[in-house]
Amino acid sequence: MILDRLHLKKGIGQALIVNSGNANAFTGPEGLAHAREMGRRVADQLKISFHHVFVGSTGVIGVPLPMPALRNGIPALILRLRKAGYKEAAQAIMTTDTRPKEIAVQHRIAGKMVTIGGIAKGSGMIHPDMATMLAYLTTDVVIDQKTLQKTLRTVANQSFNCISVDGETSTNDTVLCLANGLAGNTLIRGSSSAHTQFQNLLHEVCHFLAMEICRDGEGATKIIKIELSGASSHKAAKQFAQTLATSPLVKTAIFGADPNWGRIIAALGRAGLPLHPNRIVIAFNGLSIVKDGKGLGPRIEGQIQKIMRRPSFTISISLGTGTGSSTIWTTDLTYDYIKINASYRS
Amino acid sequence: MILDRLHLKKGIGQALIVNSGNANAFTGPEGLAHAREMGRRVADQLKISFHHVFVGSTGVIGVPLPMPALRNGIPALILRLRKAGYKEAAQAIMTTDTRPKEIAVQHRIAGKMVTIGGIAKGSGMIHPDMATMLAYLTTDVVIDQKTLQKTLRTVANQSFNCISVDGETSTNDTVLCLANGLAGNTLIRGSSSAHTQFQNLLHEVCHFLAMEICRDGEGATKIIKIELSGASSHKAAKQFAQTLATSPLVKTAIFGADPNWGRIIAALGRAGLPLHPNRIVIAFNGLSIVKDGKGLGPRIEGQIQKIMRRPSFTISISLGTGTGSSTIWTTDLTYDYIKINASYRS
Repeated sequence: MILDRLHLKKGIGQALIVNSGNANAFTGPEGLAHAREMGRRVADQLKISFHHVFVGSTGVIGVPLPMPALRNGIPALILRLRKAGYKEAAQAIMTTDTRPKEIAVQHRIAGKMVTIGGIAKGSGMIHPDMATMLAYLTTDVVIDQKTLQKTLRTVANQSFNCISVDGETSTNDTVLCLANGLAGNTLIRGSSSAHTQFQNLLHEVCHFLAMEICRDGEGATKIIKIELSGASSHKAAKQFAQTLATSPLVKTAIFGADPNWGRIIAALGRAGLPLHPNRIVIAFNGLSIVKDGKGLGPRIEGQIQKIMRRPSFTISISLGTGTGSSTIWTTDLTYDYIKINASYRS
Repeated sequence: MILDRLHLKKGIGQALIVNSGNANAFTGPEGLAHAREMGRRVADQLKISFHHVFVGSTGVIGVPLPMPALRNGIPALILRLRKAGYKEAAQAIMTTDTRPKEIAVQHRIAGKMVTIGGIAKGSGMIHPDMATMLAYLTTDVVIDQKTLQKTLRTVANQSFNCISVDGETSTNDTVLCLANGLAGNTLIRGSSSAHTQFQNLLHEVCHFLAMEICRDGEGATKIIKIELSGASSHKAAKQFAQTLATSPLVKTAIFGADPNWGRIIAALGRAGLPLHPNRIVIAFNGLSIVKDGKGLGPRIEGQIQKIMRRPSFTISISLGTGTGSSTIWTTDLTYDYIKINASYRS
């Protein structure tokens, strides 16, 4: 990641080399040297500039990379480079993921068909600021580097930065988008309708991959959209939403399909911000369960329980304080999360 | 709790009435009226002032108290009041607790034998700021209300406020200490050696009850002391320690006895404060596993794994930045935490 930041300054990427199983993090100067070597070997073989190679690693922290295996593997990898290789790449970057995550979309933009493809990995250690998530996007759009960077940041903030599996973040996270300009469209500039179209297309890709990461969240059986509105500011809304999305009691209640809204109230209460209990409205898929300072009774709770048995639903919370809002997707907390993480390395 | 705060202003307590199973929280004005009625009925029966009765409730949030049962129960309870009743009281206040928590200690202070007894409940929703924890202490010491209050606050901050089971806090928490002065010692004043002795005795009681709550933490199989030192301030140390104590990945690694110190590094990294990775020292029961920016290898990890299989151990982390330190006790995160909380109400 340190290396990628340096290479990003140049703004040009031509190749990616990524390993899974070892994060090459907290490995000191030796680790940085290993990352450089990975990149340089790829550059030499492909006869491109070292600065145009991006290097990614994901897996266990604190263990040196097995360089002999990498040195052997890189030439073989390069011999197998081909268009359909993205499927193997999506598979290869997995760690605790149970399935590869990939998508490709096409849309006519500025007179030409534009394609965006993406692969991602992520399952545990998922929380805003991206956590243990790698996402690699490619597109043939014609766009300048600065506009692409800005667009990607906006879109990532509305997708990859809006999901939380376990509240953990990570040493290693990357979202990269490479554009080769082969679509031949008129150059896309910011604040044009073509730009809006491209941004929407990029959002479709990133949102899909982010949801795939949630759906494949460690041990997750459900995916829940938390819509927090009526907060005093966007920042406050985000804090409330993240507190809910990381509350083990809320997440175990979701796993058990228990309409125990008291846990939502308790989690809101400990978010560390002012709250007017009597103004809080809580609804599941639009059906209110809390209003005017009290629960709406067992009959409604029965209906909510049915909603909570579904694999995905929305919890909307209105605080009645202001106009700040924030949305986050999260998962339930289950036996399998414990199983996966109590024995990750053994 | 709202009622207790009012009654605390008077500074005198003569009776406690506590129910479990229902938290009487988020129950609106009706809930407050119910708490008042509980207190008033006890006061009438005991012929004491209503203002000297403290009322506690713990359990499910948002459901009105079953007042007919309480109205019937209170006279029967009062008929059964007796010295040995503390055992039943410790049992009666339990919710998800698997066993009652109680202690009594004696020490000669200011020429007289002084006794402190305590009962507590707490298992899940345990985190600094006390969370779902009730602790009721009684003593025969002669002490003025203001000094007792100050001493209790100090001691609670070093005991009940230093434990975290699941990072959740709660609508209902109370630590109360009642002193009747029957020991006949010379009045204890602040900054006397008698005061130090009393504070130590009170600490013994509170520390024991806090550890009992941890040991009985929902699903917990281990209790871990996290000693964080070398932070830039006490506040920073507390933030690092709490981030570790609430990290699901650290807590599942502890459950699995996996010396995956990378998760400790990752959790420190996301605490939101500056960090010098190369200065971090991590030790388990005094045995270092991370130093000078790297792990100390598989042989040490094998030894650490043996330590991690014990029911309790200490993780010491030195950040090498300053002199701020903080200690917190936490538990592992296990299958049984999920089991207990996915089906608490059903």
